[in-house]
Amino acid sequence: MNKNHILLIGAFAAISISSFSPESHAAEGMWQPHQLPEIAEQLKAAGLELEPESLTDLNEFPMGAIVSLGGCTASFVSARGLIVSNHHCIYGSVQYNSTEENNLLKNGFLAKSFKKELQATPGSRVYVTEEINEVTNDITGDLTDGISGIERYKTIDKNSKALVAECESDDRYRCRVVNFHGGMEYYLFKQLMIRDVRLVYAPATSIGKFGGDIDNWMWPRHTGDFGFYRAYVGPDGQPADYSEDNVPFEPKHFLKVSAKGVGVGDYVMVLGYPGRTNRYRTSSEVKNTFTWTYPTSKAYLEKSIDIIKANSAAGSDQRIKYEGSLAGLANASKNYGSMITSYNKGTTQQRQDQLEKDLNKWIAEFSERNNKYGTSTEELSRLILRSQENQARGMLLSYIGRTTMVRTAYALYKLAKESEKPDMERDRGYQERDMNRFEQRMQAINRRYDSEIDKALLHYYIQQYAQLPEDQRLKSLDKVLAISTESKDGSLLNLLDEMYSNTKLGDQETRLSWIKRGPSEFENSDDPFIKLAVATYKQREEIKDKGEALTGDIQVVRPKYMEAIIAFYNDKKLPVYADANSTLRLTYGNVKAYSPQDGLLAVPFTTLEGIAAKDTGEKPFNSPQKQLDLIEEKHYGKYVDKDLGSVPVNFLATLDVTGGNSGSPTLNARAELVGLLFDGVYESIIGDWDYDSELNRTISVDSRYMLWVMEYVDGAGNLLDEMEIVD
Amino acid sequence: MNKNHILLIGAFAAISISSFSPESHAAEGMWQPHQLPEIAEQLKAAGLELEPESLTDLNEFPMGAIVSLGGCTASFVSARGLIVSNHHCIYGSVQYNSTEENNLLKNGFLAKSFKKELQATPGSRVYVTEEINEVTNDITGDLTDGISGIERYKTIDKNSKALVAECESDDRYRCRVVNFHGGMEYYLFKQLMIRDVRLVYAPATSIGKFGGDIDNWMWPRHTGDFGFYRAYVGPDGQPADYSEDNVPFEPKHFLKVSAKGVGVGDYVMVLGYPGRTNRYRTSSEVKNTFTWTYPTSKAYLEKSIDIIKANSAAGSDQRIKYEGSLAGLANASKNYGSMITSYNKGTTQQRQDQLEKDLNKWIAEFSERNNKYGTSTEELSRLILRSQENQARGMLLSYIGRTTMVRTAYALYKLAKESEKPDMERDRGYQERDMNRFEQRMQAINRRYDSEIDKALLHYYIQQYAQLPEDQRLKSLDKVLAISTESKDGSLLNLLDEMYSNTKLGDQETRLSWIKRGPSEFENSDDPFIKLAVATYKQREEIKDKGEALTGDIQVVRPKYMEAIIAFYNDKKLPVYADANSTLRLTYGNVKAYSPQDGLLAVPFTTLEGIAAKDTGEKPFNSPQKQLDLIEEKHYGKYVDKDLGSVPVNFLATLDVTGGNSGSPTLNARAELVGLLFDGVYESIIGDWDYDSELNRTISVDSRYMLWVMEYVDGAGNLLDEMEIVD
Repeated sequence: MNKNHILLIGAFAAISISSFSPESHAAEGMWQPHQLPEIAEQLKAAGLELEPESLTDLNEFPMGAIVSLGGCTASFVSARGLIVSNHHCIYGSVQYNSTEENNLLKNGFLAKSFKKELQATPGSRVYVTEEINEVTNDITGDLTDGISGIERYKTIDKNSKALVAECESDDRYRCRVVNFHGGMEYYLFKQLMIRDVRLVYAPATSIGKFGGDIDNWMWPRHTGDFGFYRAYVGPDGQPADYSEDNVPFEPKHFLKVSAKGVGVGDYVMVLGYPGRTNRYRTSSEVKNTFTWTYPTSKAYLEKSIDIIKANSAAGSDQRIKYEGSLAGLANASKNYGSMITSYNKGTTQQRQDQLEKDLNKWIAEFSERNNKYGTSTEELSRLILRSQENQARGMLLSYIGRTTMVRTAYALYKLAKESEKPDMERDRGYQERDMNRFEQRMQAINRRYDSEIDKALLHYYIQQYAQLPEDQRLKSLDKVLAISTESKDGSLLNLLDEMYSNTKLGDQETRLSWIKRGPSEFENSDDPFIKLAVATYKQREEIKDKGEALTGDIQVVRPKYMEAIIAFYNDKKLPVYADANSTLRLTYGNVKAYSPQDGLLAVPFTTLEGIAAKDTGEKPFNSPQKQLDLIEEKHYGKYVDKDLGSVPVNFLATLDVTGGNSGSPTLNARAELVGLLFDGVYESIIGDWDYDSELNRTISVDSRYMLWVMEYVDGAGNLLDEMEIVD
Repeated sequence: MNKNHILLIGAFAAISISSFSPESHAAEGMWQPHQLPEIAEQLKAAGLELEPESLTDLNEFPMGAIVSLGGCTASFVSARGLIVSNHHCIYGSVQYNSTEENNLLKNGFLAKSFKKELQATPGSRVYVTEEINEVTNDITGDLTDGISGIERYKTIDKNSKALVAECESDDRYRCRVVNFHGGMEYYLFKQLMIRDVRLVYAPATSIGKFGGDIDNWMWPRHTGDFGFYRAYVGPDGQPADYSEDNVPFEPKHFLKVSAKGVGVGDYVMVLGYPGRTNRYRTSSEVKNTFTWTYPTSKAYLEKSIDIIKANSAAGSDQRIKYEGSLAGLANASKNYGSMITSYNKGTTQQRQDQLEKDLNKWIAEFSERNNKYGTSTEELSRLILRSQENQARGMLLSYIGRTTMVRTAYALYKLAKESEKPDMERDRGYQERDMNRFEQRMQAINRRYDSEIDKALLHYYIQQYAQLPEDQRLKSLDKVLAISTESKDGSLLNLLDEMYSNTKLGDQETRLSWIKRGPSEFENSDDPFIKLAVATYKQREEIKDKGEALTGDIQVVRPKYMEAIIAFYNDKKLPVYADANSTLRLTYGNVKAYSPQDGLLAVPFTTLEGIAAKDTGEKPFNSPQKQLDLIEEKHYGKYVDKDLGSVPVNFLATLDVTGGNSGSPTLNARAELVGLLFDGVYESIIGDWDYDSELNRTISVDSRYMLWVMEYVDGAGNLLDEMEIVD
């Protein structure tokens, strides 16, 4: 579960649809803080020593110590704003500060004093959730049954933007309105946004990313996936841009770090920001995803990898620019591959079908229930089928729209069009609040762009698009690309050669200069990609509008369907958690082995000796010599686990997490930090759709390994002194 | 450990040299039957319920039930000569009886009555060891210290042949003189040779070889590697050639088959014919093998695979002819790869060095010991260095001599030359007793020969050979191939093209016609390969003579070195077993898990469900549908293991075995058959040099799976009735 995964899956999820889990297992569930009293009995039975009630308050311990980095979770581990997260979550900041002479990625980095801490990569933020309020009535209270789908969509969008704007009128805060249970409930999240973030400590990549992409999602694992930031604020204690005068932020609470760790079977829990799950999708959504969406997308991803490799020699500048993309594509492809295999081998679909039968039977049992839920489940099925009608085209337009030049031109012209509207009426991503990030994205392009590769990718996607039936294609796009039923490929390659030769959007200055221009300037431009964006704009917007209208229609019935499911479960005395949506959740479980395959048992702990056994001296299995020497000497210090006879490196637990949980503290029964969650095992990838208590396992860095590396390998005594370490 | 492996490793072992294991572990040791009273205490402590003494008599139970198939082990399981072994040991006979219309490999075969049993592949034999007698004095008694190495070699060879000839004067028997402890002891083995062997039952290859080469050496494993033969004799009860009048052989003893099986930790033992180990080699032999012989040979094997593939399209007739060779080469390469990895990762060399130090220290302790052993260990080291001097040439000549046309010509001319001598003076392999097999080999060539591939392989090996320094090359070979220091490659390819175009040895009739001809006919032949054989004969014989002289020299000191080792161990009250040499041995141990990698545990049993999980419908993971249906229905019958909740398929044990043990019965404490040994795990391959009790694990087919398949999948009720099945 590296960062690429999290981001990529996020992107792809937009085109995917989705399962729910038939039984509530011990460790299944991503619980909202306010739900914890509901499951107090289970929490206590599982081993929690704190009062469940005490976990509900965002401003108390331990919730007050949990923060979001936007895509990753992190936690405060000192009174002076020290933050621990995964190495892969702070990787960008290490890379950003690396130079050829001073290669921090390779050597690691440790600030021996506050003054030596380095600015994190631009745009780094620490979000402290201070308030969560239900706002369902504000969002949907003024909706009436008779309105159209598009009206519904727009009303919800408008109400949501208004609440956010009001909340963000205090510019120290960042706010979001998030829907739960497919729109059954809405909550407003208010987060203090700390803007001065600094890099404090990262072990060498050969510890922090030991095993690299080969070991990604895999057990046995030996990755020291941890690193430290510090949050800084102005001298007044309020969020501020970077300044030398800034001072460490003083969090309300911080976590103690355990030097004793956990043992087999122990209670553990994770607080964090899981990104997205699809546990309550209908049977047909599940089937479509696993038999069409994922296999189709996987084929495109693999082809994209082939194209990038065929157009860049290993080690060349071009290849280096695309290493990140390649890793991301390979990760997503591995991800889909795992899910398809799990689906084909497992009983996800059968159980899903059974659940749907049971639910329908339950609904039909009483006429009152039938009146309440009957029509909406039927209607939902109908709408889902409609949403799948154009999915082949949707996926291809999406792949085309993600090639760099097309994406850039589309985004710039869209910005020009949206800028003509009042801020509150603009589409998400094009409002004033989004402009910083928009500009950063436009700046970042050159580091990841090569025209030959981009052209080859675009050429491939267009070839696929051209094979769609004519009534599925966009007339405006066909016209620009000279695609017709007679000569589908035509002189496409020549045309693309010309387009890439003549466009100026590859130039950073030119690109940025378009940000402030109006639509008419675009409409008069000779730049071939801008011409493409302008020519196809209307049709693309029509497709978007239709999608929003359909979303609006679904927003009527999906909440009712979810109400039925919740009532159905509650009828069985089972509490229901909402799908992950990047909001704060708690999951609890145990340290536990699993059987990845008949005849094999994945035991819950790996040890230092496993690092030495995997070491080859070559990336990604090139442990620092100092670490190898310490292992050879069995220099365990106080971090030795007596049962294991060594220092534990990573451990398995039954926790229910997903991308976005990366960097979350893994806590023991007293909420002491015993590990950092950083991955799930290969067999658990399908967990986003279907939690299986037999196979779903998370991987955490053991706090004992983290402390051992800090003390003996990297000499981070200053940080050990700053933290509160408990036995 | 498929059959290819066994044979190939046998072939390659001839050029390899070899370690010994520093400590006697519980399960380490391949014990000769007469040694068992020596280790009676350990056997009882481990769980043996029989009297160890009762295992020493070849004509009593259970030893009387164990037979050799020549390369594999097997055992009698009924009073009417029914024999069980591995599917891979009887594979050739299934293949031999397969036709396109009646594909026994695919469908399996079951004779429902004696009459329907099929003749095994020609040359199939069942060997029942009836007598083992020490003959050391007969072999080495008349040797004096002053004689030369070559004299020593020839005397031992002559004495050995004389004993064999005398023993085989009763033509029902096949006899062998085998040296133990590098020539410290010699034993004469007298085996009844049953010549009418019939195929009784083989499950479908998709059971018998489930997992194929991918799973070979691997755990978890789900292979039903079993099959049945029946031994037939003449109406007089004596061995006879195949005849309809023959009757089933009545063995003195047969094994009962357990329907209850074993559990974790249970005592198990294996009786069988392990092929070859190298546990008592010197430190420098170990080092040379793992740092030169295996890596060099592995590179040649991989190159050979590349060449075969480059010269035959997948699925082509040529490729089909070489599938067996490819599998063998891949298996040997995997084998070497595993051993090199184990050696590099492990402490084999360090422990070996330490042992040698300890031994030398022990020898030096008393002047009496030093006088007895001191010089011979030094002398052994010197001779070993000498044997390594020409090893690069030796390996290349060996690879050249194994290409088909060269091998054929060499063997035919050698036969002509040897035939001029009295039978007893001929080299092994060229005596009257060898002629049947010689002819069979000459007949079998066409099924595995393609001139283009053979040429490409020969071309590659000669190119390598040509790069040797001139004084390492053979002048006679250089002359025929026009190799000189100036133009090493020369017009080699043209020459080879011509040789392969003009040779008639590819033709079976021509080839066989050469068997009876005299040397002068060869010397006047125009066949280019015969010319090559004739031209190089003298030099090749000189090399052979030098090798034999060196062997003779080593035969003086290796036994003394082994005496020192045995005395050294006995001084520590440890019994010593001899290296494997294809003679009957017993090994005992327990059913036990192991950790193949930090964080993973290989549990001792796999189950039926694992078959369904691995099944892909594609070879080699294409389980018969009937089996899949039975698994789906959880139709376990009485073969279910309560702890596992399923039928066990394969199991792990700590037994100490090697190639040749394939097909051996795995017995419980009462010598009931609980499994069939068929493989070792990947980490145990280095076991031939260095037994590691942590990693050395054998894989057996569980008798419960065998019986389950017989009863439910294949309906072999007739055999179940015939056998004695116990609970």
